[in-house]
Amino acid sequence: MSATASVLIIGNEVLSGRTRDANLPWLAVELGKLGLRLVETRIVRDKTEAIVEAVNDLRVRNDYVITTGGIGPTHDDITADAIAKAFGVELIRDSEAFRTLADHYGSENMNAARLKMAYLPEGAVPVANPVSGAAGFRIGNVFVLAGVPIIMQAMFKVASPQLTGGAPFASRTVSVDLPESLFAAELEQLQERFAEIEIGSYPVYGDTPGVALVMTGVDAARLDSCTVELMAAIRAIGGTLVD
Amino acid sequence: MSATASVLIIGNEVLSGRTRDANLPWLAVELGKLGLRLVETRIVRDKTEAIVEAVNDLRVRNDYVITTGGIGPTHDDITADAIAKAFGVELIRDSEAFRTLADHYGSENMNAARLKMAYLPEGAVPVANPVSGAAGFRIGNVFVLAGVPIIMQAMFKVASPQLTGGAPFASRTVSVDLPESLFAAELEQLQERFAEIEIGSYPVYGDTPGVALVMTGVDAARLDSCTVELMAAIRAIGGTLVD
Repeated sequence: MSATASVLIIGNEVLSGRTRDANLPWLAVELGKLGLRLVETRIVRDKTEAIVEAVNDLRVRNDYVITTGGIGPTHDDITADAIAKAFGVELIRDSEAFRTLADHYGSENMNAARLKMAYLPEGAVPVANPVSGAAGFRIGNVFVLAGVPIIMQAMFKVASPQLTGGAPFASRTVSVDLPESLFAAELEQLQERFAEIEIGSYPVYGDTPGVALVMTGVDAARLDSCTVELMAAIRAIGGTLVD
Repeated sequence: MSATASVLIIGNEVLSGRTRDANLPWLAVELGKLGLRLVETRIVRDKTEAIVEAVNDLRVRNDYVITTGGIGPTHDDITADAIAKAFGVELIRDSEAFRTLADHYGSENMNAARLKMAYLPEGAVPVANPVSGAAGFRIGNVFVLAGVPIIMQAMFKVASPQLTGGAPFASRTVSVDLPESLFAAELEQLQERFAEIEIGSYPVYGDTPGVALVMTGVDAARLDSCTVELMAAIRAIGGTLVD
């Protein structure tokens, strides 16, 4: 079994449609490179109870949880507080996070809003934020990162040596000019014979309609065998493989 | 309280990073127009247990659930089966869904894969698919739609008269050239005085760094008052409002 990861996206702006989340696609790819299988994602509002419930669900059944959003200085930044509640601990002033903020803003410019960002759940370890002052943190198997993509990405790179995955996933894609309902039976048989490979069938509607068949797994030789057999099966029923 | 909606995105391709979901931002906006508040979203893999758990969680605590993905003819299209299990009912052949498929493909071209799409959970009512043959369906407060955006959108428009919301949400945005940590206190006071309005503070990192302040609510007059007060507060601390 691969190690698993989950992502918790925190933010009203994503659920209102104002902001199109760009973190999930990026994290999905990066987690895959680490050999971690992203098995579920939740998007919740800036509500304490919603965050607490989601993080507690996700952290018990996945090896890792990555959260994005809500670590800034304003009233709607409640992630640290909610994570503390989820773990049943208090928020305490973290000296490393405080020092980073004081360096970033200048000690003489610290105010209540900036000081708020120095408070992390007891037991949390800061994840450095190379872009702005606010630290992320790790507590248990939960990594709490920023919501702004460039910051989130920088923080993830800081944190990623702490994520232990397995063999990275590889994939092969075969594109076909037939409707998938003409080779669903062949595909199902192939899936049964290559049980450890995940075969997905994705219709494409566009200038050249067809189907993208995607095989994902960790064993390159098996992926290649599966690809060869799939291509043969498609040709046998008169399909053409397209680029 | 506004009526609430949730979205369940079903598909390995979104969690692998291969496909960037485009349905959530679209649904978020459309649900808002109907006066429905989208309060949570989950993204799960093509696994029966994951779909069953998510849909059963979401349907008891939201007025509506919209699912996307997994209604096609291949082995990885398991949504109808999973929804049937979630509701504790059998899949049965739906005569309307069957007729639509037979018309779409031609009766003489029906095969097992195409026939599979005529099976809906007992008690479900088809949602017509104006683009391809596969029906979506409604069962209880759950609307099961396609994953391909153009098809999902067409189906949502067919289904939307069955969604009863409230007053549509409106929003006002004020952009400011100050870091949010300089007016977090003012913002929090404003949020307390306009409790029914949701005030979000979103840092912008780019050519002109600043913050977008977004106020969302159903009462236009109150939104306007909140906006005026916010602008005055920003000016009072030396901020400039930017376009």
